Amino acid sequence: MPSPIVQPLFDLARRHRIGFCLGYAELTDKGERFNTQILVDREGEVVGKYRKVHIPGHEHHEPDRPFQHAERYYFTPSSEGFPVWNAFGGRVGMMICNDRRWPESYRVMGLQGVELILCGYNTPLHYVPDPTQDPLQGFHNALVMQSGAYQNGTFVVGVAKGGVEEGVDSLADSMIVAPSGEILAKASTSGDELIWADCNLDWCYQYKDTLFDFDRYRRPEVYTRISGQRGVDPSDRGPFNKL
Amino acid sequence: MPSPIVQPLFDLARRHRIGFCLGYAELTDKGERFNTQILVDREGEVVGKYRKVHIPGHEHHEPDRPFQHAERYYFTPSSEGFPVWNAFGGRVGMMICNDRRWPESYRVMGLQGVELILCGYNTPLHYVPDPTQDPLQGFHNALVMQSGAYQNGTFVVGVAKGGVEEGVDSLADSMIVAPSGEILAKASTSGDELIWADCNLDWCYQYKDTLFDFDRYRRPEVYTRISGQRGVDPSDRGPFNKL
Repeated sequence: MPSPIVQPLFDLARRHRIGFCLGYAELTDKGERFNTQILVDREGEVVGKYRKVHIPGHEHHEPDRPFQHAERYYFTPSSEGFPVWNAFGGRVGMMICNDRRWPESYRVMGLQGVELILCGYNTPLHYVPDPTQDPLQGFHNALVMQSGAYQNGTFVVGVAKGGVEEGVDSLADSMIVAPSGEILAKASTSGDELIWADCNLDWCYQYKDTLFDFDRYRRPEVYTRISGQRGVDPSDRGPFNKL
Repeated sequence: MPSPIVQPLFDLARRHRIGFCLGYAELTDKGERFNTQILVDREGEVVGKYRKVHIPGHEHHEPDRPFQHAERYYFTPSSEGFPVWNAFGGRVGMMICNDRRWPESYRVMGLQGVELILCGYNTPLHYVPDPTQDPLQGFHNALVMQSGAYQNGTFVVGVAKGGVEEGVDSLADSMIVAPSGEILAKASTSGDELIWADCNLDWCYQYKDTLFDFDRYRRPEVYTRISGQRGVDPSDRGPFNKL
């Protein structure tokens, strides 16, 4: 990056001194395929590259679905985690789509002092495995980004694809969330739209230095399950369990 | 427990075959003081005991405050973590007040298959270290319980003290949250009030078995910071960082 196809975007952004974030399907020299997002600064230089950690959907073609969500067939999950970069005068992290539903994504960046998280997403409004979630898509999208922002004292910017592609309608609701969890700006349509907000990074410290002073209040010694096991352990019970 | 003072409560509840949760200040034989909550089944038997992990506030008297929040002076933080008990035909966990603001609390229980989390809280409406958070108390309270419920596919029941004590006004907003994150019932006043909801635990599996199938989708190998460090590590940067 920049490839010839996106070179005009880099050129135009640099001319106007605008930094940006860009998602794409990455094919490495080793033949690995990652769902990738890069952070480009005002000079048009790539300052950060993030590869998606949480790959949702399924591994194989499922003929009964109205549309496929075979992201696990196409992409390798990254093992590089969630780095945070010094850029734009602050500490910036990235995540992609499904990552935003996992509190661990925000927390791993929060533990590196992130102040601004940039997230692109492409979320079908119809969730095939459980359609009762369909009418809740907008609610869930806001809920996870607002709580992730608040619980880590960071801005979160979520940018939706939105609209219809190949007959699949996807969530819009691009938004900029403050460290308080409040939504500062939100797209009101599913079409092309520009939203903006002033992001004073000092706001983060009204949370990071008080209620969420991690060094003072966190208790990592009792969080060992979070990084120590993947699935549910149903066998363990409390000391007073009688069943 | 039951002590003579609460014996009438135990007796009455057992007579009506109603289980309950009870919070109290516990003094152990060793002289330790915990902020504790017990789970009592329909037969009046104590089936679970939880001691608070996240102790907020301050260690010493701070004379400039309009009221003290010296919980860290009075209570020892528990190192027993967040157990989950088989009770009431499901898997039940507990947390207390400030625990609900930390996604780790819910996740540690989620990793034990929790289906219902019971939380008592006593939250002053005025947050002395940052009064800009005062008007957001109700929003933050709902945000953390709703996201914790959704992200772990569990019911969450939050029970407020509410009202004024010794001149300090505290948040009400007791609520029952579904595994979808939706609020099923919420108190509408700061006085004594009864709220209820049917909690069909099967609902949990519309989330635990799909989007939040932990065994399929979680990536504990990149979550190591969460249990491996307490405070913020500002030094670590991504591979493309240029600053």
